[in-house]
Amino acid sequence: MEIDRPYLLFLGDVKDQLAAKTAQGIVDWRREWCIGQLRLPNCGADCGVPDMGLEEAGAAGVRTLVVGVANPGGVLPEHWVGTIVAGMDAGLNVATGLHQRLADVPAIASAADRNGVKLFDVRHSHEIFATGNGNKRAGLRLLTVGTDCSVGKKYTALALERGMREAGLDADFRATGQTGVFISGRGIAIDAVVADFISGAAEWLSPEADPAHWDVVEGQGSLFHPSFAGVSLGLLHGSQPDAFVVCHEPTRTTMRNVSAPIPDIAEVIDMTVAHGKLTNPAIRCVGLAINTAELDNAAAERCIAELGDRYALPACDPVRTGVEPIVARLMDQFPS
Amino acid sequence: MEIDRPYLLFLGDVKDQLAAKTAQGIVDWRREWCIGQLRLPNCGADCGVPDMGLEEAGAAGVRTLVVGVANPGGVLPEHWVGTIVAGMDAGLNVATGLHQRLADVPAIASAADRNGVKLFDVRHSHEIFATGNGNKRAGLRLLTVGTDCSVGKKYTALALERGMREAGLDADFRATGQTGVFISGRGIAIDAVVADFISGAAEWLSPEADPAHWDVVEGQGSLFHPSFAGVSLGLLHGSQPDAFVVCHEPTRTTMRNVSAPIPDIAEVIDMTVAHGKLTNPAIRCVGLAINTAELDNAAAERCIAELGDRYALPACDPVRTGVEPIVARLMDQFPS
Repeated sequence: MEIDRPYLLFLGDVKDQLAAKTAQGIVDWRREWCIGQLRLPNCGADCGVPDMGLEEAGAAGVRTLVVGVANPGGVLPEHWVGTIVAGMDAGLNVATGLHQRLADVPAIASAADRNGVKLFDVRHSHEIFATGNGNKRAGLRLLTVGTDCSVGKKYTALALERGMREAGLDADFRATGQTGVFISGRGIAIDAVVADFISGAAEWLSPEADPAHWDVVEGQGSLFHPSFAGVSLGLLHGSQPDAFVVCHEPTRTTMRNVSAPIPDIAEVIDMTVAHGKLTNPAIRCVGLAINTAELDNAAAERCIAELGDRYALPACDPVRTGVEPIVARLMDQFPS
Repeated sequence: MEIDRPYLLFLGDVKDQLAAKTAQGIVDWRREWCIGQLRLPNCGADCGVPDMGLEEAGAAGVRTLVVGVANPGGVLPEHWVGTIVAGMDAGLNVATGLHQRLADVPAIASAADRNGVKLFDVRHSHEIFATGNGNKRAGLRLLTVGTDCSVGKKYTALALERGMREAGLDADFRATGQTGVFISGRGIAIDAVVADFISGAAEWLSPEADPAHWDVVEGQGSLFHPSFAGVSLGLLHGSQPDAFVVCHEPTRTTMRNVSAPIPDIAEVIDMTVAHGKLTNPAIRCVGLAINTAELDNAAAERCIAELGDRYALPACDPVRTGVEPIVARLMDQFPS
């Protein structure tokens, strides 16, 4: 799935900024792909790009109307369909990350046929995957793993891609979740793949490459999360990382949405190496990404320094301090 | 999915016994559910139950025509459709474990409507699963795990169910693969579940029960198999076993269909405990099921004795020697 760019971000009439977090993520990371935003009356979100109508967007070269919202039911509000159909009549493709498939809305399916435009259901892949084979592929790979869900694995991977490119490395972010797919224009929502094919999908996502090329793979879940560890393990085996970064939120005591305790960083490192060596015996941890959003500056600085010392690893907060220490470690340990 | 019994086994015109292994598994384990078999001309398989026509089967009380074959493409041969439709016209439900859905064959879909009979696609579940929550449920659970795929996890679980019942325990086999679903009349092909829901599906499969009741859960794959470890881990977390049995084939050197080496039994025990304790801190290994099919009697006896000694665990071959030592260990360690 490679979504045509640039994008016009459709925010509908969502009531607040949080509901537009997918669109906001795209703007944060791929400002240059976002020509504008289209908002209906009473929209409570603003992603800070020019407001724009469909005709104007078409004239400006927009290729895809991205429904950049997340809502609990994952369904498309009926009163948005008219605007989406008008977008297709103006020649735009349409993409969403909702559970509901665009083609299941009859007016959208017929408008797509009529105009010969494409529909992208980012949550659903049409790709036929093979089961994983575990064979080593050429190229270098980095995977972000976590002590929990929602600790910054996507953000860290994107920050590493940017930092590695600035340092002159050949690096590509590989998305494994819906927001990541929009940000990178490609990828797979790996939690939506049939269980038999998790590692096979991860192998497909990060194919054989130039020996000096880095794929920076967005991690999912945690090996210690009772809901999603299977996804995390299949992704680890299929990604066969040479290097991994542990992402951690230091103020949490139990894992997100369940009562299991947060594992120690050392346990995550050891377990990741224990499993990862099956498909890459050279796997190693190259740093810690500490999400200090809940701490003030002084506490954040202390926390990062203390964890870096304790585990003898480069530590940073990708948002607050940047990822330079981890990039430096990579340059040092993988000289090209 | 609870498949109506008893069954008439449809073997079509498969060319050999191996192609009828699903039907043979049902006969081996649930002879009393199998009223007969229906074979087309030139069928090369025979499951050793009476040959029977559709009318006769209906009169004998058969409820479901089971397409008991496995073929590589997983599709239904066109020249079988007539017999299947005639079965529905005779009042029978139809079940298959093929990838192709019965309702996707128009003649079968309309015959089901016309006769008000049920279609069971064992490989596909209509159940809406939640993501796993990791909470401890009442009841006891045993999971068979493996050093590899296809080492006897299903056979061991079924043999344990039988042995535990003979010893007076309240035990139920829980199927996680298509043949197991046919044998037990219920269950889920867990490798066909969407990745996000593996552990949730395993929780659904083995619900809260009487404190003395055992669910004997059929394992899948191996934590060390690069193709399927994600499925194995989600199944372990969701099953939250009190006890597990390691299934092992002692003559293999690499894992099935891949080049990864077979792990040591001790590694499998340690890794199963390391992950399993997340959802059941009391998890323990209660025995080894050694698949000695490739060894002669003397070598099998030596191998079982040696492995039992080395790991200080009850060891047996469920096919050759039965599972009594493991059942005895369960009675000893879990007094009711």
